Amino acid sequence: MDPEKEITIYDIAKKLNISAATVSRGLMDHPSVNINTKQKVVEAAQEMGYRSNHLASNLRKKKSNIIGIIVGNLNSSFMSNVIAGVEKVLSEAGYNLIISQSLDSVAKEVNIAQAMYNNRVDGLMVSLAYETENADHFESFVKRGIPLVYFDRVWPHPKCPGIEIDNVKASYHITDHLIKQGCKRIAHITAFRLSSVAADRYKGYEQALIDNNLRVEEDLILRTQLTLKAGIEAAHTILAMAKRPDGVFVTNDACAVSCMQELKRHGIRIPDDIAFAGFNNDTEASIIEPNLTTVNYKGYDMGEVAAKILINRLNNSENVSPADNKLIQKSELVIRDSSLKKK
Amino acid sequence: MDPEKEITIYDIAKKLNISAATVSRGLMDHPSVNINTKQKVVEAAQEMGYRSNHLASNLRKKKSNIIGIIVGNLNSSFMSNVIAGVEKVLSEAGYNLIISQSLDSVAKEVNIAQAMYNNRVDGLMVSLAYETENADHFESFVKRGIPLVYFDRVWPHPKCPGIEIDNVKASYHITDHLIKQGCKRIAHITAFRLSSVAADRYKGYEQALIDNNLRVEEDLILRTQLTLKAGIEAAHTILAMAKRPDGVFVTNDACAVSCMQELKRHGIRIPDDIAFAGFNNDTEASIIEPNLTTVNYKGYDMGEVAAKILINRLNNSENVSPADNKLIQKSELVIRDSSLKKK
Repeated sequence: MDPEKEITIYDIAKKLNISAATVSRGLMDHPSVNINTKQKVVEAAQEMGYRSNHLASNLRKKKSNIIGIIVGNLNSSFMSNVIAGVEKVLSEAGYNLIISQSLDSVAKEVNIAQAMYNNRVDGLMVSLAYETENADHFESFVKRGIPLVYFDRVWPHPKCPGIEIDNVKASYHITDHLIKQGCKRIAHITAFRLSSVAADRYKGYEQALIDNNLRVEEDLILRTQLTLKAGIEAAHTILAMAKRPDGVFVTNDACAVSCMQELKRHGIRIPDDIAFAGFNNDTEASIIEPNLTTVNYKGYDMGEVAAKILINRLNNSENVSPADNKLIQKSELVIRDSSLKKK
Repeated sequence: MDPEKEITIYDIAKKLNISAATVSRGLMDHPSVNINTKQKVVEAAQEMGYRSNHLASNLRKKKSNIIGIIVGNLNSSFMSNVIAGVEKVLSEAGYNLIISQSLDSVAKEVNIAQAMYNNRVDGLMVSLAYETENADHFESFVKRGIPLVYFDRVWPHPKCPGIEIDNVKASYHITDHLIKQGCKRIAHITAFRLSSVAADRYKGYEQALIDNNLRVEEDLILRTQLTLKAGIEAAHTILAMAKRPDGVFVTNDACAVSCMQELKRHGIRIPDDIAFAGFNNDTEASIIEPNLTTVNYKGYDMGEVAAKILINRLNNSENVSPADNKLIQKSELVIRDSSLKKK
């Protein structure tokens, strides 16, 4: 077979010595074509490697049976769990999932959105890139009536449900827990650019300090990339402080764990010298010693819920009431040894 | 806009009061259409949400600029690293990546392969599902001349390069290292169904025992799902043994780490009572205490190499010599405290 040549219905017609119109109707299971001819057409199409014409078949069926998901980065157990939950629901509903990562770049997110649109996904799920400041590049989906569901890093939109957790509340609780354990100088490791998620966690931290009559000190706010490497650098910033914190709340676990490891290497005792708390309940949090206090919110459940909402939208295209558009998932404080100064 | 209606070139033609043929030529940048008309056509197409006809545009350009990747499971830092390496190379070359996971099911892999084929990916990268016993479902790509590159879990094929590491050699070395540390009864935690990867690691383990005049004991081969849960179960199997092993070589790190944690909970000292070694150098391996001895092979590098080969194939469609078809990536033994009985 000449790999350069795309097989068309004309090639199939020529091979079977019938008209192209008959081939076309046969492939579309049209009643005017007799069953034997249909079978011959389908067999020849398969044998010759004919690829269904997406435009034509989608115009008829309006379905690709493919759902797209765009995430910032796949590199976390939280996101793996979300995708596992999504896959479970979609598999049961007979859809395939294609995944793309924006690598937290808005330019890449715009490209991927366009590719998914051209690929005619039946629905789209999005957790926005860290950099993204508006969601205009997803408007084509909304206009076209393709269901779009946001999760985790969401964009408020009357037609697009968003599933998230109450980040302010969760980080308020974890900061308050550190204070109750006796911490008076709590550092916060957060992001350079505040996404809605990081901003909300910062807000909760700040409010807990204020409510407990503690000062919010700019020196104790460490803005980083939140990577493993950033955790090590943050440890050195802390080690170099004239007056070190007695507690650290990090906005994600990965960065918290690498920061803890580096401080331990320099003789800092956790939680006695510095208590630690993270966020996400990633696998590492229960491997590091002492185990890391963190906020658990089930990625798997979030994925399941988001996918179910999407499938519902696909099955019922009527509008859903606005009250349905913001879904708060449950989260819980997981207290482990890294924060227990009082035992 | 009526979301049910697909915008066609006829709609654009009607709006601009020109012929559909002119719209079609305008969208394809045909020299017969004047530049002002072209611009009007393109603007109207964007405004109305016209989706490019994949068949037509691919027949012309024969390119979607999309590369597909199918992996067994995204849920490991190894696979995240592979994908990061792939993304880097593809981004630079101007391609978008769509990812699908087979969840190690051959049925799902067959479906996804078909979806990727119909979506006209320009190239495909595959790490086979755990269950897969042949690669017939990828033949349509080969026939069609769409470059296909295997990595990690590969399928030997004269036209499809495979990038892997020498699993026999690496596991021989790590088992030999345990023996040199004084281990005489080394258990091996492996998979129920032996993929080429698990089979090769088993082979290396066996050969190292034989070469060191140690018996291969069936009781010491633990066949599991290799999950975190399986690691805990394996720990209980070991605890219940009349004669416990003095070393354990696990075919992946995740399972090794959970097995170690459970044994530690039951008072087993590592490495004194039982030395441990894993495979993959996942993040957990350097968080668990004692840190886990393992085999490092760079997922990022493997992803980069695989993507570069794919891009080369896309740019030069001529056949590559068979010698090019099996690429062995370097791997190295990372010795940490979990295996150091002799210090």
